[in-house]
Amino acid sequence: MARFEPKNPDYRAISIETFEAQRAMKTLGISIARLEPGEVDLAMEYSAEFTQQHGFVHAGVITAGLDNACGIAAFTLMPAGSGILTVEFKTNLLAPARGERFAFSATVVKPGRTLTVCEARAYAVHEGVEILIATMSGTLMALAPREATAWGRALAEV
Amino acid sequence: MARFEPKNPDYRAISIETFEAQRAMKTLGISIARLEPGEVDLAMEYSAEFTQQHGFVHAGVITAGLDNACGIAAFTLMPAGSGILTVEFKTNLLAPARGERFAFSATVVKPGRTLTVCEARAYAVHEGVEILIATMSGTLMALAPREATAWGRALAEV
Amino acid sequence: MARFEPKNPDYRAISIETFEAQRAMKTLGISIARLEPGEVDLAMEYSAEFTQQHGFVHAGVITAGLDNACGIAAFTLMPAGSGILTVEFKTNLLAPARGERFAFSATVVKPGRTLTVCEARAYAVHEGVEILIATMSGTLMALAPREATAWGRALAEV
Amino acid sequence: MARFEPKNPDYRAISIETFEAQRAMKTLGISIARLEPGEVDLAMEYSAEFTQQHGFVHAGVITAGLDNACGIAAFTLMPAGSGILTVEFKTNLLAPARGERFAFSATVVKPGRTLTVCEARAYAVHEGVEILIATMSGTLMALAPREATAWGRALAEV
Repeated sequence: MARFEPKNPDYRAISIETFEAQRAMKTLGISIARLEPGEVDLAMEYSAEFTQQHGFVHAGVITAGLDNACGIAAFTLMPAGSGILTVEFKTNLLAPARGERFAFSATVVKPGRTLTVCEARAYAVHEGVEILIATMSGTLMALAPREATAWGRALAEV
Repeated sequence: MARFEPKNPDYRAISIETFEAQRAMKTLGISIARLEPGEVDLAMEYSAEFTQQHGFVHAGVITAGLDNACGIAAFTLMPAGSGILTVEFKTNLLAPARGERFAFSATVVKPGRTLTVCEARAYAVHEGVEILIATMSGTLMALAPREATAWGRALAEV
Repeated sequence: MARFEPKNPDYRAISIETFEAQRAMKTLGISIARLEPGEVDLAMEYSAEFTQQHGFVHAGVITAGLDNACGIAAFTLMPAGSGILTVEFKTNLLAPARGERFAFSATVVKPGRTLTVCEARAYAVHEGVEILIATMSGTLMALAPREATAWGRALAEV
Repeated sequence: MARFEPKNPDYRAISIETFEAQRAMKTLGISIARLEPGEVDLAMEYSAEFTQQHGFVHAGVITAGLDNACGIAAFTLMPAGSGILTVEFKTNLLAPARGERFAFSATVVKPGRTLTVCEARAYAVHEGVEILIATMSGTLMALAPREATAWGRALAEV
C-alpha cells in the first residue's frame, strides 16, 4: 500500500533515468537500492578517493547522497514532464562517516505543486553494524514542463 | 590588519596541512586560493565527472567546497593541537552551478572555544562573468588536543 | 520501555521546572502535554495576539514551540546540574498555522555529551482535523554544571 | 543609489501595511526602523513577558523578528498584488539575547520571480554595547495576485 499516489504513471522509469543522467552519481559510486512513490534508498560503497583528513567519507559526499535521495523521492511524485531542482537543504552530522558501505534513505514529508519538503537519513555500515551518521531536511522545486525544457534560463529566474 | 587574532602562530601551515590531508579535495579538484585568520577562499575547476543531469556541477560537490571553506576558516582560529569537525550546515542554492571555474569564500561570523559559526558563498565564473550560486551557514566544533588524537572515538561521543 | 535511558533520575521534575521558568511559554500559552526521556509534546491554544496578516499564528511563535519541545526533549537526557542552550535550528513551514489548537512534538535523534540533535513537528487542529504544519531539526548544547551556574558568561564564550 | 530596483512603485506603503497587519508584531513590540528596497531593519524593546529561564529573550521571539525582517525585505521587491509566505529559515544563536533593545537587519541575497533568499542578523544592545546574537538565512515565496487573494487555499497546495 503506497503512502503517496504518483501523478505520473511512468514515475519509476523517469526517476531512474533522471538519476542515471547525473554523472556525479556514477563518479561517487552511488546507485538506487529502492524506489517507491515518495521514498528512495540509495547505496554507496566506500572509496578512499572521497575521504577527509581522518579517512572517513567527506561530509560533502554524504550530502550529495542525501540530496539525491531527497530529489528522487520528490521527483517520483511530480507530474510527467516536470523538471526538478533543489532549493535548500540542511545537514546535521551525527557521527563520522566510517564504513564499508553507506545508505541514504529519503521520504517526502509534504508534496506540493511547486515545493516539496523531504527528510533523509544517512547510515554507515562498519564491520556489520549500521549507525545513523547524518540527517537532512530539504526543499525541492518542481519546474513545469515548459520551464523544464528551458531549465537553465528558468532556474536563473527562479 | 586582521579582523581576527589567531591563537595558533602556526595556523597557516597547519590549516594547509589539514586541507591537503583531505583526499576528497584533491579528487574534486579543490585548492586553497587565499587563507587569512578567519577567512578562506577555495578554487575549483569544472569537471564533467561531477555534474548532474543538466551538465552543471552537482549541489553536493558545491556543498563540499562550501563546507571545506567554512571548516578551514574556523580552523585558522583554533588553538594548536585542536581537531575540527562539522556539526551542521545549510545550503541555499541560488542559481545553476554552470561555469568553467568556481570559488568558495568563507568567513568566521563568531569564533568560540567549542563552537564556531561560519558563512560561505559559492560563485561560478561562466564566460568571464561571476555569479553567486549558493550560500552556506554552518557550525564547526573544536576538539581539544586530547580529544583530537582520539578523534573517531571522541566524535562518536559528541 | 524507554527508547533512551535518562542519566538524571530527577529528569522529569527538573525538565518541568526549567520549562516553567520560561516566562515566554506562559505568555504564549504553551504547556507540556507529555514528557518522556528524549520525547516531549507541547500544546498551545490559538491566540489572536500572536497572528500574522492572515490571522494565522506567526511562524516565530510556531518556532518558539518547536524549539522548546526540542530543548526539553534534549534536556531530559542530560546529567543532573546541566544547563542547556540552543545552538541552531531550521524550520520548514508546510501549511498555514490555522487552527484552534496546536501541538509540538520533539524527539531526540542523537544524544551526546556536548551536543544533542533533535527533530520536531508542529501540528494544527482545525475543526477537528489535525495537519502537519511545520518541521524543525535543531542542535542543543549541554553546559556542564560549573558552566551552567555562570551561564551568561559561559555562553558568551561558547 | 538603491542596490535593488522595486517592481512595485508603492512598495513602501504596502510593505508597512503588511507589517502592521501582523498582530504578533505589535504584541511582541517589534516595529520598522528602516525600510529600503531589499533591506529592512526592525527594532524591539526588551519585555520580561518573552524571556526564557535565564531572563534573556526567548529564541523563538528573536526568530520572529528575524523572520519578519526577511519577509518584509523580500516583499519590497515583489510585484504589486503579490502575497508572501515563508518557506523555511535557519537560525544560528551566537550569544544570549540579553539587552534593553534589539535590532533585526535583513537583506535580500537573491530576489526571484517565485523564491527570494534573504539573510538577517539580530543584535542586542546591552548597557550601550551592541553585539551580534543570531543569524538567519531564509527562503520566501511570492504568491501571484490571484493566488494571494485565496491565500489559505493556495498555501495548502503549495
